[in-house]
Amino acid sequence: MSEKKHLIDFASCGGCSAKLASKDLAQVLQTLPETHDERLLVGHETFDDAGVYYLNPEQALVQTVDFFPPNYNDPVWFGRVAAANSISDVYAMGGVPVTALSIVGFPSSELPLEALTGILKGAQEKVAECGAVLVGGHTIRDPELKFGLSVTGLVHPARVTSNAGAKPGDVLFLTKPLGMGPVTTAYRKSAIAEEHMLRAIQQMATLNKSAAEAMSAVGINEAHGIHAATDVTGIGLVGHARNIARASKVTLSFRADALPLFEGAREFAAQGLNSGAMKTNEALLAEQIEIAAGLNEGLRRVIFDAETSGGLLIAVASQSKERLARELSKRGVACIAEVGHVEAQGPKLLTVR
Amino acid sequence: MSEKKHLIDFASCGGCSAKLASKDLAQVLQTLPETHDERLLVGHETFDDAGVYYLNPEQALVQTVDFFPPNYNDPVWFGRVAAANSISDVYAMGGVPVTALSIVGFPSSELPLEALTGILKGAQEKVAECGAVLVGGHTIRDPELKFGLSVTGLVHPARVTSNAGAKPGDVLFLTKPLGMGPVTTAYRKSAIAEEHMLRAIQQMATLNKSAAEAMSAVGINEAHGIHAATDVTGIGLVGHARNIARASKVTLSFRADALPLFEGAREFAAQGLNSGAMKTNEALLAEQIEIAAGLNEGLRRVIFDAETSGGLLIAVASQSKERLARELSKRGVACIAEVGHVEAQGPKLLTVR
Repeated sequence: MSEKKHLIDFASCGGCSAKLASKDLAQVLQTLPETHDERLLVGHETFDDAGVYYLNPEQALVQTVDFFPPNYNDPVWFGRVAAANSISDVYAMGGVPVTALSIVGFPSSELPLEALTGILKGAQEKVAECGAVLVGGHTIRDPELKFGLSVTGLVHPARVTSNAGAKPGDVLFLTKPLGMGPVTTAYRKSAIAEEHMLRAIQQMATLNKSAAEAMSAVGINEAHGIHAATDVTGIGLVGHARNIARASKVTLSFRADALPLFEGAREFAAQGLNSGAMKTNEALLAEQIEIAAGLNEGLRRVIFDAETSGGLLIAVASQSKERLARELSKRGVACIAEVGHVEAQGPKLLTVR
Repeated sequence: MSEKKHLIDFASCGGCSAKLASKDLAQVLQTLPETHDERLLVGHETFDDAGVYYLNPEQALVQTVDFFPPNYNDPVWFGRVAAANSISDVYAMGGVPVTALSIVGFPSSELPLEALTGILKGAQEKVAECGAVLVGGHTIRDPELKFGLSVTGLVHPARVTSNAGAKPGDVLFLTKPLGMGPVTTAYRKSAIAEEHMLRAIQQMATLNKSAAEAMSAVGINEAHGIHAATDVTGIGLVGHARNIARASKVTLSFRADALPLFEGAREFAAQGLNSGAMKTNEALLAEQIEIAAGLNEGLRRVIFDAETSGGLLIAVASQSKERLARELSKRGVACIAEVGHVEAQGPKLLTVR
C-alpha cells in the first residue's frame, strides 16, 4: 500500500452506508413507468434483494448488483467483504450464484495498481468459494475508490425466498450478529483495536452460502418450510425486516434480548459511533416500529444502523424451527439466533420488545 | 436541471474515455489466478465485449457491465446513451438482452433528484426497446455522477460472435460512423453547436439491435456466415480491431477512405480536440498498427480515440457480404460501411492504407 494514503482515505463514506437514502430512491422509482413483463417473477415492487426472471420451468435468473467505498484498509480483505456482500443477495433469494462481473472505481493516479490487484484477488477467492466464476467487469478511473459485483444466480422458479411469503406464526432467525455500522465507524475514527476490527471484517467476508443451503434443505416455500428471507445490509435490521413485513402484510416481532450483537457494537453505538445511514434509516423507519420503553439506547441505534454483508433474516414455519437450527448447525453457521416471530398485521410493521 | 451546475460538471472525464488504461488493467488481470471452468465459453482471455456462460444446449448467458460519467447535459439523453452503450456488448456477442440492472453514482446533495429520474427514464426506454426488463440496480451517493447498466442476455452456445473467429478473406463492416471522442470533447469545450451535438447523441443512443439481428439472419459461425464481431467503444477502432486480430491470429486491414466519419469529427480531432483516452490508446496500440504514410492526421487521431456506444465491427465471409449489407439495409441500419478485410497474420495486427 501507498505510504501516503490508506484505502479508506478514498471514501467519503464506507460500506453499505454509502447507499442513496431509500426515501429518495423510492421517490425516483415511483415516477418511472411500471414494468409489466410476466417473466419478471420478482421486481422492485417488493423491495427484494434481487430481481428474479423466469427462463424455463426449472430455472430463473437471480440478478443483483452492489458496490461501495472501502470500509477497511487491506485491499484483499476489502475485496472479500465487497464480494461476499454482493453475492449475499443471491443467497437471500434462495439462489445459487453462477457468474459475477466486477465493478471498480479506482483512483489510479493516487493508489498503486497493487491495491486493485489485491481487491480483485479477494473478490475472486469469494466468487470461487461459492462455485461461481468471474466473467469480466468494468473499471473506471474515479477519485473515490469503490468496488462490488454484479452477480447472476440460478433458482428454481417455485423456490424463491422473496420478501412476500412470511406468515403469522413463522419463527424468525438471524444468521450473523448485528453491529457492522458502529464497528466500521469506530474503525474510521480509530476507536477500535486492529484485531477487533479484523474479526468484524472476517464476519463480513463470510458468505451466506451455508445459511442458504440450510434453507434449501428445510424446503423453500413448502407448507412447513422456509417462507421468506432477506439479507440485512444498508437499511439495517429495521429496514430489511420492514420490507418483509410490508411485502408479506404481517408484523415482525423481535425479542430485544435475543438479538445477536457483535462484540462492542452496542457500546460504540451508545457513544454515538454510528454510520451516517443510522439517522437516515431512523428518519425513514421510526414511525413503522414500536419499540418497548426502556430499550437499551445502544441497541436501538444498532438496529437502525447499516450492516455490511449481514446475515440472513429467515421466516420459517414454526414446525420446522428445530430442523432449520439443525441444518444451520450441521453446515457450521456460527450464529443461529431465534430472534422473534411473525404476527398478523398490527398497527406497526415491526415491534421490538 | 439545477441552474447552478450542469450534468457534465460532475464528471472529471466523459463517456468511455473514463475507462482505466487498458495496459494497467491487463497488468492487474495478469497477476490474478486463471479461472478454469468449462461452462465459461468466453472469458477475459480474448478481451471480448462480454462473458459467455453455458446454461444448457440451447442457452448461454451473456454478461456485461459498463458505466461512465455524463457526456451530455440532458439527463434523459444521457440515460439513453449510457443504456445503449451497455446493452451493445450483448449485441456484439450475438445475444439478445433479457435483463438489466442500473448502476448509479449520484451527487444527491448537489443535483436535484429529477436528474436521476430523467436518467433512469432514458435507460428504461432503451431497455424496453430491446425487449429486456430493468430488474433492479444499485445507487450510491457519489461526488462524481456516473451511470450504466449490468446487462444479461441469452445466446445459443454455438452462435456466439466472439473476437476469435475472424478468418483471412473475411470482409469487415462497420455500422456507425466514428468520431464520438472528438465530438464529445468539442462539447465539453463548448466548441460544437447544440444541434450538431444532439445528432451525435442520437447516434450514440441508437441500439445495435438491428445490426445484431442482421448478423443472425446471415448466420453466425456458419462457414459462409458471420465469423466475428465486436462493438467499438473505449479503446477506439484501433483497440477493438486489435482485439479481434489478436484473438483470431490474423491481421485486419482497413481502407482509410472507406472509414465512415461523423460530421466534423476529423476536423475537431485535427484541432487537438480529443478525449484523454486518445493518447492512452495511442501509447498502447501504435506499435501494433501499420499506418500508410500521409494518412490525414485528423483521421489518425479519430481511429485511436474512444467511441461511446459505437457501431458493430463485423467480420463476414466474403461470399456473404452483399447478403449482410442487404440484411442491415432491410432493418434500417443507417451506416453500412465496408471498411476493409481480414488477412493472414502479418508483421502488424492492423494496417490502415
